[in-house]
Amino acid sequence: MATIRDVAQRAGVGVATVSRVLSENGYVKEETRQKVLEAIQELNYTPNEIARNLYYKRTGIVAVIIPQISHPFFAEFVDKVVVELFSYNYKAMICNTWSDGSYELQYFDMLKRNMVDGIICGTHSITNEEYFNIDRPIVALDHTFGKAIPCVSVNHKEGGRLAAMELIEAGCKNVLQFRGSSKTGSPALLRHDVFEQIIKEHGIGYHEILTDINDVSEASADKATYEFINNYSDVDGIFGTDIIVMSAMKRAHEKGIDIPGQLKVVGYDGTEMSRLASPGLTTICQPIGDLAKESVKIMMDLINGKDVDTNEVHLSVSLHRDKSTAH
Amino acid sequence: MATIRDVAQRAGVGVATVSRVLSENGYVKEETRQKVLEAIQELNYTPNEIARNLYYKRTGIVAVIIPQISHPFFAEFVDKVVVELFSYNYKAMICNTWSDGSYELQYFDMLKRNMVDGIICGTHSITNEEYFNIDRPIVALDHTFGKAIPCVSVNHKEGGRLAAMELIEAGCKNVLQFRGSSKTGSPALLRHDVFEQIIKEHGIGYHEILTDINDVSEASADKATYEFINNYSDVDGIFGTDIIVMSAMKRAHEKGIDIPGQLKVVGYDGTEMSRLASPGLTTICQPIGDLAKESVKIMMDLINGKDVDTNEVHLSVSLHRDKSTAH
Repeated sequence: MATIRDVAQRAGVGVATVSRVLSENGYVKEETRQKVLEAIQELNYTPNEIARNLYYKRTGIVAVIIPQISHPFFAEFVDKVVVELFSYNYKAMICNTWSDGSYELQYFDMLKRNMVDGIICGTHSITNEEYFNIDRPIVALDHTFGKAIPCVSVNHKEGGRLAAMELIEAGCKNVLQFRGSSKTGSPALLRHDVFEQIIKEHGIGYHEILTDINDVSEASADKATYEFINNYSDVDGIFGTDIIVMSAMKRAHEKGIDIPGQLKVVGYDGTEMSRLASPGLTTICQPIGDLAKESVKIMMDLINGKDVDTNEVHLSVSLHRDKSTAH
Repeated sequence: MATIRDVAQRAGVGVATVSRVLSENGYVKEETRQKVLEAIQELNYTPNEIARNLYYKRTGIVAVIIPQISHPFFAEFVDKVVVELFSYNYKAMICNTWSDGSYELQYFDMLKRNMVDGIICGTHSITNEEYFNIDRPIVALDHTFGKAIPCVSVNHKEGGRLAAMELIEAGCKNVLQFRGSSKTGSPALLRHDVFEQIIKEHGIGYHEILTDINDVSEASADKATYEFINNYSDVDGIFGTDIIVMSAMKRAHEKGIDIPGQLKVVGYDGTEMSRLASPGLTTICQPIGDLAKESVKIMMDLINGKDVDTNEVHLSVSLHRDKSTAH
């Protein structure tokens, strides 16, 4: 394989000149530039990307840390992040944590060792202090670190309100919420408080089943909906993530409970997958594409050393109304 | 930030000695090694990964090219690939092509420029010749290149047979297949021929709707199932990918068609998402974890210069029987 030295020799110039042509940096006479470009073509020379990155102190890679890529919300988020990064000539490295903080630490170590230029972090199993030790570009999805690290999130309170009002308007008298919990806290959890408050204010029966928000596995959804169908089959309305309520809908179907006749259902996330539910699922949609766009925009500003507004970004949610809450 | 020179100075040794300690390569007196390690700790020195990779001519990254990460089959495949790569201390870079060959070529260019050590390729929109021009590690998922490039696939013929037999045993008399098509060919398409052949051999009515296998978008599934519900609502059995048949089930539900009473349904892929269908979906399961394991194993052998058996690897499929074909 041809090296930069071969190119220089063929073009009859020094290595530094070839380097200037490649980087489009510094003055090179047009005639010389042409000679170098011809030599590059003749020798089929491709510059070594690693060496180039060493020179620019850039890898062109942003790591995206998530609990599990096969979870529909994270799959869609990453899909859109890849699109956005591509437009900046950046690539995405995928880092699953399987909700285990020790993986998260390993990935952060990667950032310290310059394997990636920044991290978009969609899961948080470690303490804030461990984040603050890293003086490199980090953008957090749905996690508040105060002023230290920019956070991109949606207006989850409004999401909780929309869900509660939808079940109330559909005539529910006894509802159950699948409630996410987390040791490290997340603005996403705010929807649960608002949902509970509004339901109770309306004098409606309220129950909840707890689930770990970092554990997005099928087994975890299965466990929660097993508890629902065995202990709460008398509720007439449920609210939870798309995955959990779709699992609950399957169990209701097996038990001969009619949706929406006997049970009204509202999901959360609005993933593409939720469009495949039968009957059609009413769900609170997060603007996943915009979350990705905003996260990548802030990341690029951080990488390029620009000033970044570290106030939390709150994007709007919306209600997608379908058969599962018809009345 | 501390450099290798700072470490050398603090430890009172030469840079080459520090380098030997870091790479665990070459003899260093134990006493000296301790001094170096102490200096590393005192200065909180982390070696520059880019420089290290330049030295070893490795990036520690494998690119995974897929049409779209948010498609459940590819999301699960990538999820498992990330797990497998992790066990080899490798990371995955995600490359979406959105079924556009020009993206594929850009990603291959990345391999040529040493940005990644290899490519696991799960989509094929470009010609075989373009692949053969690349003398670097490539593993293909579901695409045959003859002896040049190893291919990992399942026994799709058996998948087609199992699906046909399931609908026949369920008593179907008039079935429809959502048939994938592709310009570049794929062993995955073999299931369609076998399915059609067995159905016809049994004197059962046969219809098909064509879909582009590289276009895994929701819109594409929507279009196909729209045609189904409008032109073929008299069929009593359907076979297609999990996504397509779940979309068809939703349309059938909206039209008041009972599943499995009036319509039997068999999916293909066996993704986790298919477990959320109501009623429960009978589907042909690809062993997605094993596909990932096998792909990564071959990739690692290629990267390490080992001899690789380029005969196609055919893993077994299995039938998951559920409510959608009950009779």
